[in-house]
Amino acid sequence: MGGLEQLSQHSSSSVTKDQDGVKKNLSSDRVIINLDHGDPMMFEEYWKRNGDKCTITISGSQSLSYFSDPKNLCWFLEPEFGEEIKRLHNVVGNAITEDRYIVVGTGSTQLFQAALYALSSPGASSEPINVVSAVPYFSCYPAITDFLKSGLHKWAGDAWTYDKEEPYIEVVTSPNNPDGNVREPVVKRNGGMVIHDLAYYWPQYTPITSAADHDLMLFTVSKCTGHAGARIGWALVKDKDVAAKMKDFITISTIGVSKDSQLRAAKILRAVSESCQNTGLGNVKNIFSYGRSRMNERWERLRAVIKQNGLFSLPEYSNQFCNFLGECAEISPAFAWLESKGKIEDTESFLKGHNIITRSGKAFGVSNKYVRISMLDREETFNLLLERLSTL
Amino acid sequence: MGGLEQLSQHSSSSVTKDQDGVKKNLSSDRVIINLDHGDPMMFEEYWKRNGDKCTITISGSQSLSYFSDPKNLCWFLEPEFGEEIKRLHNVVGNAITEDRYIVVGTGSTQLFQAALYALSSPGASSEPINVVSAVPYFSCYPAITDFLKSGLHKWAGDAWTYDKEEPYIEVVTSPNNPDGNVREPVVKRNGGMVIHDLAYYWPQYTPITSAADHDLMLFTVSKCTGHAGARIGWALVKDKDVAAKMKDFITISTIGVSKDSQLRAAKILRAVSESCQNTGLGNVKNIFSYGRSRMNERWERLRAVIKQNGLFSLPEYSNQFCNFLGECAEISPAFAWLESKGKIEDTESFLKGHNIITRSGKAFGVSNKYVRISMLDREETFNLLLERLSTL
Repeated sequence: MGGLEQLSQHSSSSVTKDQDGVKKNLSSDRVIINLDHGDPMMFEEYWKRNGDKCTITISGSQSLSYFSDPKNLCWFLEPEFGEEIKRLHNVVGNAITEDRYIVVGTGSTQLFQAALYALSSPGASSEPINVVSAVPYFSCYPAITDFLKSGLHKWAGDAWTYDKEEPYIEVVTSPNNPDGNVREPVVKRNGGMVIHDLAYYWPQYTPITSAADHDLMLFTVSKCTGHAGARIGWALVKDKDVAAKMKDFITISTIGVSKDSQLRAAKILRAVSESCQNTGLGNVKNIFSYGRSRMNERWERLRAVIKQNGLFSLPEYSNQFCNFLGECAEISPAFAWLESKGKIEDTESFLKGHNIITRSGKAFGVSNKYVRISMLDREETFNLLLERLSTL
Repeated sequence: MGGLEQLSQHSSSSVTKDQDGVKKNLSSDRVIINLDHGDPMMFEEYWKRNGDKCTITISGSQSLSYFSDPKNLCWFLEPEFGEEIKRLHNVVGNAITEDRYIVVGTGSTQLFQAALYALSSPGASSEPINVVSAVPYFSCYPAITDFLKSGLHKWAGDAWTYDKEEPYIEVVTSPNNPDGNVREPVVKRNGGMVIHDLAYYWPQYTPITSAADHDLMLFTVSKCTGHAGARIGWALVKDKDVAAKMKDFITISTIGVSKDSQLRAAKILRAVSESCQNTGLGNVKNIFSYGRSRMNERWERLRAVIKQNGLFSLPEYSNQFCNFLGECAEISPAFAWLESKGKIEDTESFLKGHNIITRSGKAFGVSNKYVRISMLDREETFNLLLERLSTL
């Protein structure tokens, strides 16, 4: 539950940040650095420089109707957004889109709920289905699964230790949030259903080793291009009935998804695809190459500071060949998964004592020796983090 | 359940409509007229003529962050949208905004769920709370309340016959959807909680007789200005804890609300307020005066046809003084609530046989002698409806 509560408390607590992610009217060491959530502000600089093609103008008489495409199963999907989703996956090579249904959602958070609804077979009178994910799992899954005390599904914790002979849904986040590892299902039992949350399967975070080809895959604009404020995600779904039930969920819960943000996302994805296809022709650097250099640089600097202060350790990753970049690439996750080496038992509290706000390992189902730290904030905030860590 | 299922089936069934709400490649009497849902396309013509001030341009580097206003309880509310909500209510005089918390939602549908969550006290181990509304009630309330089999709340049907000595939430829709009547709570018992759905409390539909001053009021851009595709609604909430829980619901379910649509809605609401304040000075007619004339005219024409064919009856409404218009005004609801007079037992089926798609009274908790017909579609569709009804 911790994650979302922290996100929501963030607004009213004393640890709020201003637009630059820091509280400036305090003396340097008392400035509060909030890296609890993964606000993708790192990408703002890129869009300020290269976002000309993404400017969108919407007239007063546009998009009045609830409907975007009455003939499509997902009647609230803007056709041009659907086209750009397919195009981008083809350009990047990170997911198969042929013979899939696209369901758009108000962020991948809504799509995760739609998937739970679709896979837990509404209408059946059975017990709520177990929802599991391997530790460390994304901190928001438990709350999202249980906050309405649904009779359809219930959170059942760590997939590694799941031993019930009952139907289940396993959430596979790959690369994983919080630890960045590439993942596969771990329960692997007959009748098990899998949701693949691929929010971070983009070249700025991880090598693209193959086009993902799973039954139900979730993506979000927030982590792909950094436009979290648009609240737009999408699902690629193999089975028609599952896609239809996901569409039903979104129909009942929000009667579709903002057309304005879908049109904007279409324009942004188109610009990303075009910049990828024109690489080397003197055009703008694509967001993935940009993101890749920024992330590599940040990880290198972070590792140097962590090594120097000696209190913590970070995961080590193996390089792999990235089909998109055409070269060997490191894993450079959107979050740093920090573990205290010795005497610090509660790393979140320890860092909070130094005015660094992180998310405790407990929220991810593991020990509070761990914390998750966002690597995606503005440069100024990241610099301050390194400065602070180096003086601990 | 009927309402939303019909809405979602609409897309894949044979009764789809094209952009003009009708299927054109059929001979005139076989054209399918779909007036099942309240798609507010009537307002498109107004915005085509008067929407210049509402055009919005969003750059590629805008609105990346999840956060809109970290210091606000509702941290995902765009401040300028909050300001324009207050301004419009003050201009129209339909609701008190002083000392209220504003919570923005992905349409009022999401806010209704947020209100149920907030009022059903998550965390308590009690039985699910009863949710009631007086017949004929809005057809979507039962499905929204029950589709996740929540342990927090359950649909308990008609408020008129509610006699359990248990806590309850009553939904008061005023003017009512489907029948247009002005409403008050009917259960009125100690410990009862009320959600006021005021989606249609705007001068184009009903006289504004006073500024609504309830604990929890829901509004939506969809019915106010016709921009349903933006999926933007708002709640005015007296109690801070209730507002905070509603904010929690939206945080968990969608991590906020599209910033793009909020910014657009802010611009639209500002233009509406300005056009209201400049009436008579040679400026554009405001949307409410425009809507009022269109609705009056449509109702007059519909009543004439219904009187002439003799098969059905429509509700009669009393005129009242409208504080906004400064004159006596009729009730001209967004839906016609049609009742068959004699031998037709199932009006929905009867009209379907004549290729007119409506929503049965059964979905609203009453007899299937009734149907609800949208009065908000494009002029061409409305004309076709009258033509068809006049030949029955």
